[in-house]
Order: sequence, then structure tokens, then C-alpha cells
Amino acid sequence: MSILENIKSRADLLAVPQEKLGELCGEIRAFLIGSLSRTGGHLASNLGAVELSVALDRVYDPWKDRIVFDVGHQCYTHKLLTGRMAGFDKLRHSGGVSGFPKPGESGADAFIAGHASNSVAVALGMARARTLMGADYDVAAVIGDGALTGGLAYEGLSSAGQSGEPMVVILNDNAMSIRTNVGGMARLLSRLRVRPAYFDFKRRYRQTVGRIKPVYNAIHAVKEQVKGAILHSNVFDDMGFYYLGPVDGHDVNGLISALSWAREMRVPVLLHVITRKGRGYPAAELHPDKYHGVGPYDPLTGELKKSGESFSGVFGRELTRLAAADGRIAAITAAMADGTGLTTFEKRFPERFFDAGIAEGGAVAMAAGMAKQGMLPVAAIYSTFLQRAYDQLIHDVSLLGLHVVFGVDRAGLVGEDGETHHGVFDVAYLSSVPGMTVYAPASFAELRDMLHRALYETDGPAAVRYPRGGEGEYVSGGALDLRVFGSGADAAIVCYGTMVNEALAAQRLLKAQGVDARVVKLGRVSPLPAGELFAALGAGRVVVAEEACAAGGVGERLGAAAAARGLGLRVKPLNLGCGIVGQGTAAELRAGCGIDAAAIAKAVKELAEDEG
Amino acid sequence: MSILENIKSRADLLAVPQEKLGELCGEIRAFLIGSLSRTGGHLASNLGAVELSVALDRVYDPWKDRIVFDVGHQCYTHKLLTGRMAGFDKLRHSGGVSGFPKPGESGADAFIAGHASNSVAVALGMARARTLMGADYDVAAVIGDGALTGGLAYEGLSSAGQSGEPMVVILNDNAMSIRTNVGGMARLLSRLRVRPAYFDFKRRYRQTVGRIKPVYNAIHAVKEQVKGAILHSNVFDDMGFYYLGPVDGHDVNGLISALSWAREMRVPVLLHVITRKGRGYPAAELHPDKYHGVGPYDPLTGELKKSGESFSGVFGRELTRLAAADGRIAAITAAMADGTGLTTFEKRFPERFFDAGIAEGGAVAMAAGMAKQGMLPVAAIYSTFLQRAYDQLIHDVSLLGLHVVFGVDRAGLVGEDGETHHGVFDVAYLSSVPGMTVYAPASFAELRDMLHRALYETDGPAAVRYPRGGEGEYVSGGALDLRVFGSGADAAIVCYGTMVNEALAAQRLLKAQGVDARVVKLGRVSPLPAGELFAALGAGRVVVAEEACAAGGVGERLGAAAAARGLGLRVKPLNLGCGIVGQGTAAELRAGCGIDAAAIAKAVKELAEDEG
Repeated sequence: MSILENIKSRADLLAVPQEKLGELCGEIRAFLIGSLSRTGGHLASNLGAVELSVALDRVYDPWKDRIVFDVGHQCYTHKLLTGRMAGFDKLRHSGGVSGFPKPGESGADAFIAGHASNSVAVALGMARARTLMGADYDVAAVIGDGALTGGLAYEGLSSAGQSGEPMVVILNDNAMSIRTNVGGMARLLSRLRVRPAYFDFKRRYRQTVGRIKPVYNAIHAVKEQVKGAILHSNVFDDMGFYYLGPVDGHDVNGLISALSWAREMRVPVLLHVITRKGRGYPAAELHPDKYHGVGPYDPLTGELKKSGESFSGVFGRELTRLAAADGRIAAITAAMADGTGLTTFEKRFPERFFDAGIAEGGAVAMAAGMAKQGMLPVAAIYSTFLQRAYDQLIHDVSLLGLHVVFGVDRAGLVGEDGETHHGVFDVAYLSSVPGMTVYAPASFAELRDMLHRALYETDGPAAVRYPRGGEGEYVSGGALDLRVFGSGADAAIVCYGTMVNEALAAQRLLKAQGVDARVVKLGRVSPLPAGELFAALGAGRVVVAEEACAAGGVGERLGAAAAARGLGLRVKPLNLGCGIVGQGTAAELRAGCGIDAAAIAKAVKELAEDEG
Repeated sequence: MSILENIKSRADLLAVPQEKLGELCGEIRAFLIGSLSRTGGHLASNLGAVELSVALDRVYDPWKDRIVFDVGHQCYTHKLLTGRMAGFDKLRHSGGVSGFPKPGESGADAFIAGHASNSVAVALGMARARTLMGADYDVAAVIGDGALTGGLAYEGLSSAGQSGEPMVVILNDNAMSIRTNVGGMARLLSRLRVRPAYFDFKRRYRQTVGRIKPVYNAIHAVKEQVKGAILHSNVFDDMGFYYLGPVDGHDVNGLISALSWAREMRVPVLLHVITRKGRGYPAAELHPDKYHGVGPYDPLTGELKKSGESFSGVFGRELTRLAAADGRIAAITAAMADGTGLTTFEKRFPERFFDAGIAEGGAVAMAAGMAKQGMLPVAAIYSTFLQRAYDQLIHDVSLLGLHVVFGVDRAGLVGEDGETHHGVFDVAYLSSVPGMTVYAPASFAELRDMLHRALYETDGPAAVRYPRGGEGEYVSGGALDLRVFGSGADAAIVCYGTMVNEALAAQRLLKAQGVDARVVKLGRVSPLPAGELFAALGAGRVVVAEEACAAGGVGERLGAAAAARGLGLRVKPLNLGCGIVGQGTAAELRAGCGIDAAAIAKAVKELAEDEG
């Protein structure tokens, strides 16, 4: 039996002899490579964080201390060490472990983490709670260099450094965020990285802290000794942190020494750890971006299963085509050039391609500045991450009526990433932005046509929202406000985007049951084309089926418009309720949430038969 | 005739002899002190920025070059120099000049600025547009040290430094944001400020740049010369900026030399300018926080007109009272301790009071961390600024169902600050946050009772939203989901918060016209107490009057709920439409937007008489 399989509790982990920890790391790596080849998952970042995670769970007690992961998709080793190995068979799938830390899954997960850059602020809140309530646990935040590009990280560091709260921020620096790092912080880190040798904490720890415990009594001496030993003044020092490092992130015993030292300083400490994404798996070390988040692959060769055409790919290519004809077009991403299909654009027009880092607010404000001066900026951002820029949408873009176009990617259910990543709020928040026009293509052809309409036939801010993955049976083109399918008068099914596929299937199911419903597919979901829409309904009973939260959705706005006009319509909304939906395939989730074809048909039938 | 009064155009400003510029600054200061004593306005920050603004408008052509102000309430001198002196009689009032830069008001205002920290990202977008489109204007951003605490500023600086785009960021450093500065950046700035003497740009400018024009040909030599002359490595250098300074912000000719130098560097330059808030007006120099945004005052003594009791004051005192009995309560502000009434709390419980700086996202994420560990954090943030934390509300607070309480101050129309500051989106965006309960007190007594209910009788995230200023005729207490006034069956007027005063007045107006309407005042606006609400309406015709945008408002949600139930209700929404509303008193704006008592009465009458 392997060392890894024997670890059922923290006591088991602590019982592993120090000289066996390297072997344990090797086992974890082998397990991850094998297991993820079947389930898919965030391979490269987890391979890079094996030793760091082992060290964290040795030095800290994750059930009592608080280890706050940032982004969190590098938490697999931590999950393996805290009793969740069995759940890896269904990693990120229905009934399996989540790909992110999740307090509801285990008390060893301190906080939720799906959006970047929050860890330091959250950990600071925990450290302050600890101190104010007189508790005795320790707090650590684990943040990647990519997440440092986000302003939220800076806000957290700025407050934490000033606070004086004992806490350790571990900077997991692999010199890339998801692809390559951008911005000023990357420059600083590269300067810090070139120090002649890793700081040897193991030796120094024994010489100093080990000798003068408890450090509380000798804090000044330790501080001065440490200060002398590290690089003088850098931005972390400026912010009030004690900067320690850099240390080798693949030397597990060195990491344990460094972490122990940092933890005993009793001040805000930043520990700089250098890791390599994909460590130990040649294919992933060579192409960490390709192996960032993967589907199943061949564990021997690393060969990835081909994925089909996607809305993102179509978007990227179409924007590139348009940009060839229009020099005013610029493409902006927030660290998601691959994910949003913009690599094509970047290769063709590098001077008009801008990666703002994990900084959606900054990206949108910059786009606003470009639009004010006559450019045609197109910002491609995932629906869930664009939440970060809600204020910039209103204040910087909308109040001046600026013509910025948003490619809102991963709109709707995203599947395996689960509740932190579903794009189910954008219909609500985009509709509340003054003057924003929101298009929802249902096919690749519609995406191309609606992108053109957003760019050239729409004033002010415009968004084109489209889902993860590919199209369904519906493949027609056009950029119409709405399209009607069938002339059934028993009920109308209103939908938009790829939900049209569920709606058309429901229409067929109903037909077989003797209910004749028409399908009204919206191309423009905000502002609602109310006049045309009411004319198209042709029935007193309407079901609005959408892959979005209830609040602020089309169902709510259509119902309200009907009530304002006194039309006496019955408008039944079918949606994701509050918007919190777990992990699984999109199809599983639609069924589970009651918005698939069967559920739509059932709702229509009930409504059609209801005499109320 | 004074120098100032002679300046009608940029040519007039350029014609003022250099040795007369100090005199011009004195005239501007005297004008501001006198004019603002009648209208109110942002006194202290404008007195601090007189010389800087004169220098900016001399060095740059504001109609062609782009001067992007941050926050923007320090733009009065710039407005005086660009032909808007006459509008100061009604500064911030209906028909007068705005208190913020506004491109719609003048082509000399490059961008909108009401929310902090956006200037660098916006200016970067403009600089990139300039370069890509081959235009020849220059771009400058003017940002205060307070706005530097916002992560958005860091995102902008990080991208701008990396970009290499010629642009100048002027750091207007008065060592305080609105009150005192917080966080790590403040530490850095105080270190930079202690340099032995101001850098003498005037002399050096003549010696170097003046001699070797065009600098493009000698950029390397200039760079090296400058590098040697300034402080070595600081965070701005790390980010890719050439740091210049600090310079005396009240030496107008020195500023002109420094700005000219910075502008001709053709790289991203950060020019550090030291100013003093309230400069030249002893009362304001002594208490810049008190004179930050003022109403009318006595220009001789500085004595401010007393303002009455406010919702903010009641909130701060009640929270302090509750905190005395409950050690788990902590108060969090984002640079608005005075504005949100939390100074009382801070004095009484300094260890439980946290100012995150202008960093709403960081403040909310920190509050989430505190709540996760058992504290009872209460974050008091203006409605318009909480837009910045929309993602943290969802991701960090809501997904874990954490019990964080939000004091949403300045909800509804704020009056003189105008479109950038009205709190008219929070009902929409808060209602879309899963599990969020939103209370809307209509009186001071209700605020106290609802704060208690939010803290002790509500699970998960809870918000209490209340307006700027004081209460109206309605002064009752309680924390009920709804209250009904009258039993009129002709129509129902649904409202919440202080809009109840308009609704009750409308009810009286209608009575006089023979229409008997009941008023239903909601205490809880999300989730809607639908069952109780429909039972209370008692009429088929409903007008929902709210001081909020239409999208996602109570009118929309009530109408949708009625349509979903097939109740056949006619629900007419009366609100602020898209949510963009100008400046003026709140009463003027309510009348102008058609949501005051007269407008409500009119809408009810029309609805009651409509046979449709």
C-alpha cells in the first residue's frame, strides 16, 4: 500500500517521516496524472503545487487553522490529504469532489475560491476575527502570481500589511497566470526571482527561531535578523509585510521550514515560493497553458482528446475577420486569451490586442477610454468574471453612452466548474445597465451576425452573450430581435440562446401529447422588443424558459411588461431560481434544475390545462 | 477687472504672463471661497488643486489633449479656466455646472469621474487609441493619493507602466483621501515625501530637455539623467513608470516646468505632486475632512450651517449601541467613516472599526472572512459605491450564505452629486444576489428596528438601505414586511423607504379628487413578501412608485409575480427609468422624473379611470 493511500487523517500525514515526504509527493503526482487523464481537471497548476500543499497541511491544521486558497483550482493535493481521495473518480462531475475548495464539502476547506484575488482580503478578515475573538488558530492565504494582477489582491495586501495581524501570504509564483503574466507586478517578481540562490530557511530556521522560542519574546531580534537576510525594500515591504524568499517550491522539507518560520513571526509575512506549472509531467511543463484545464487525455503521451468547435472559437475568428476590415477594432481580454478564442486575433493583430491581466474592472475602464477616443473596443470576458466590472459598466461605459462591445463568454451553465463559475447573473446585471443592448445568439451563425449588429447597428454599450461549448440542433443565422417557430395557440414558450434547442424539443414532446405550442426565440434580450414580442405570443399562457437566475431575467421582465399593459397574460417563469447551481454536465444540470425539454413540456402542459 | 475674469479662452490663459500666475491662483482661491460659501461644494480638495489645475491647463490643451481627473470633485479651477465661471452661481444645482467633470458639459472635460480610481485605466485606453489611430494629442491622469487605495488604480498603473505608452500620471498627494489615508500605499508615499528637498524641475528642465529637443532622438540619455536624479527603485518604477518628484504642488511655475518635462519624456511617467487640502483657507486647512464636501458656510469664519439629523447619523449611533452589547459586531467602511456616520463607532470601539480605503471589493471580501469565523460584520457603503463589490457580494458572501450585514447608505436620489452618485441600482443588483434580504426603512425608528432585524432575525446576507439626509412626515417605527395605510379600493400605491411620504401625500391628493387609494409600504423589498403583498393590495390596479431604476425594481418583480400567478392585476411602474438622473435637490429630481406625489396621484387617477 502506498504512503498516500494510508493517509486518512491529519495524524496519518504527520506520521509520515520527513525523509519520506518526497516519495509521498511523487505518489500524489502519479495519482493526479492518472486520475485526471480519466476525469479531466486543472492538471498543470496542481502538479506545480504538490510540495507546497503537503507542506501547508503539515505545518497548519486545516481543520483548525485557516488556509485560504486563491482561485483554488490548485487544491487537489490538499483534497487528497484531507480524506477526499475516493471522490476523485468523479472529480468535477455530479456526485464527485469539486474542483475548487468548498467548505460545504469539507471543514478542511476554509473558504470558497473560484474567482481570483480574494484570498488576502478574506484571510485578513479571518485573522481579525481570530484576534478580536481571542481564538488561537493561524491564517494563511495562498495566492498565485497571476491573481496578483487583480486589484482586489492589492486591496487585500494593502490592508493586511497595515493591519499588523499575524498571517502568512504564500505567493505561489510560477511566472505565469493562466498564460503569460502581464503588468507591473510581473516585472517586480522577475526582479526578485533572479536572486543568486534560494534563501536557505532550513538552516536559518534551526539557527534562529528554533533556538529562541517563543519568538513572541524576541520578536524584535528575529525581525532584524530576517530583515538583514532578505532583499531590501520591495513593494511587499512597502505595504507592511515581511518579505521572505524566494524559496524552492519543489523542496518539500525546505518549504516546511520556511512556512514554520513565517508562521512564527506573528506579523504579516509574505513568503515567496517559486514553482513550476506542470512539474513532473513533461507535456504539461512544456505547454502549461494547454494543460491548464483539460478534458480526458492519454496519460502516457499527454495527447488531449480533441474538442469540437465552440462559440468562443467562432467569436475569436469572426472578430479577427472584422478587424481586418476595420482598423478601429481592438480586442481586450482579462487573462483569458485562450478561453475567449482571442489567440487568433492576437497572432494576427498583436498591436490591437490587449490582455489586462485578471483585472476585469481595469479592462472595462480602459475599453471605455478607447471608445471615448473613437476606437471600437471589444472586451471578451466570461459572464461570471464580468460581475467584477459591474460598476465600470455603469459608471465608465454607460453614463457616457460609450460604444463598447462585450463578448460575454461562458454565459449560462458552464458545467464542471460549478457554482463559482456559472454565468447565470449576466442577464440580470447587464439589463440594469442604462442603455445596454444584450444579444443572445443561439448558433454560431447567429453569433457572427449578432456580433456584426452589436458593432455596427447598435448605439451605446452592447453585449453578445454566448455559452461554453458548441451549438445544438439550431444552426440558422440572422440577428433578428425574435423568431417564431410554429403557430400553436395553446401556449407559447419564450426562450433565447441555445435554450432554443430545449424549447424546440419540448414543442415536439407537447405535440405528441396533443398540446400545440409555439416557440418564440428572442435574439435581443434587453431591452425586450416588447411590442413585437406580445404580438408574437398569440396565446394567453406563456412559459419563459431560461438558463439564468430568476431575478432580473426575461421571465420577470416579460411578466412585468404584461402586467403593466394589463394584458391578462399568464407568464410562468422556468429558470435557475436564485442562481446557485452545483457541478455536473450542463445537460445534467438543466434536467436537475427543471429547465430541460421534459420540464418545459411539463410546465406548458400544466399551464395549458390549468383553468385558474 | 481681475485676471480670472479675463480668461474666456485658452489663448487668454496662455496670455497671462508667467509672473502673474501666482496672482491668478490667489484670485481663483478667493473666488472659490466666496462662491462655495453660497452654493456649497467640495471646498478643501479644490483649494488644494488650484496651482496644479492652472499648470495642467497651461501645459495641456484640454480641448485637444485629454486630462482625465480621478474622482473629479477637484475640477473647479479647471472649469473656471475653461469658460464655465457663470455656472458657478448654481454649482451642483439644477441648471448650474456639475461638481464633477462632464464631457456633456464641455469638450474640455475628457471623461466622467465620480467613482474613484478609474483615471489611469481610462487614460491608458485613450493613450492607446491615440497611438493606434496615429493622433497627436497627449494624455494625463490626475489621481489623488486616496484613490490609489483602490484596486482599480493598481490595475490601471500596472497595465499603463507595462504599456510604454507616452502618458503622465499626476499623483496629487495631500496625504489624506477623504479623511486619513490607509493601507500600504500610504506607507510608501510617506517614505517618498520625506526626501530632503523638492526636486527642482525648473532648473533641470532648462538644462536638459530644453537643450536636447526633440527628446525622441535622445530618449536614452534623458532617461538615464532622470533616473540618476530621482529616488532609486520604488513601486512606481517596478510598475514600469518613470517616477518624478516630489514637487511642490503650490509652486505654479515649478509645476509647469515639471509637467512639461514629464510630458516630453514620451514614456509612462508618474509625477508626484505634494499639495495641501484646504490650502489658503485656515478653517479648511485645519479640518479638511469637515470641509471636504460642504453646504453653505460663512466665508469669513468658515462656520458651517448646521445640518439636521440624518439616516447615516442614526445608523452609526444605533450600531454603536448594539456593539456595546455584542462583541461580535465589527464596523467596516470604505473611506467613508464620516459619511456613513461611523465616527461614533470608531471612537467608542476603535479595535472593531476597519477602514479599507476606497476599496469596496476588499472591504466586502474581508467582511466575508470575518463572518465565516463567527463575527457579525456590518459594512456601511454608499449604494453607488457598493456597485464596485457586486461580484464579492455574490462570490464571497452569498455562495456560502454568510451573514454579513450591509448598511447601504445614500440609497435613492442623492441630489447635488448627480448621475455618478445616485443610489438607484442597488434594489436591482442586491435583489439578484442569492439569499440576500433587503430592508428599506422609511424613518429613523424603522432604521433602528430593521438594523436589529437584519442582524438578529435574518439568515445569510442582509442589506438595510436608507437615503441621504433625514426623514419626512413618516416617523413610525417597526420592522414589518409591509404596512397598509387606508382601505381605498380604487387602486393601491406600493412604495418603500421615504417614498412613503410622496405616496401618502398622493393618497390625500387623490382623496380630494374622489379617488380612494390605499398605500402599501414595503419594509422588505427583497425577497418580496408576495403572499402578504397580494392580499394587501385589495384592488386590481396598482401603481408601484420607487426612487430606483426600472430594471429589477419592485415594480418589475411585483408585476412579474402577478403575471406568474395569473391574477389579472394591472401593475403600473413609476420609477427613474434607466436610472440616469442629473443634479438638483432630491425634491426637484423626483418632480422632474415624475415620481413625486403629484405624479403618483396623476398615474393612479389615469389607471383608475382607464377602462382597458
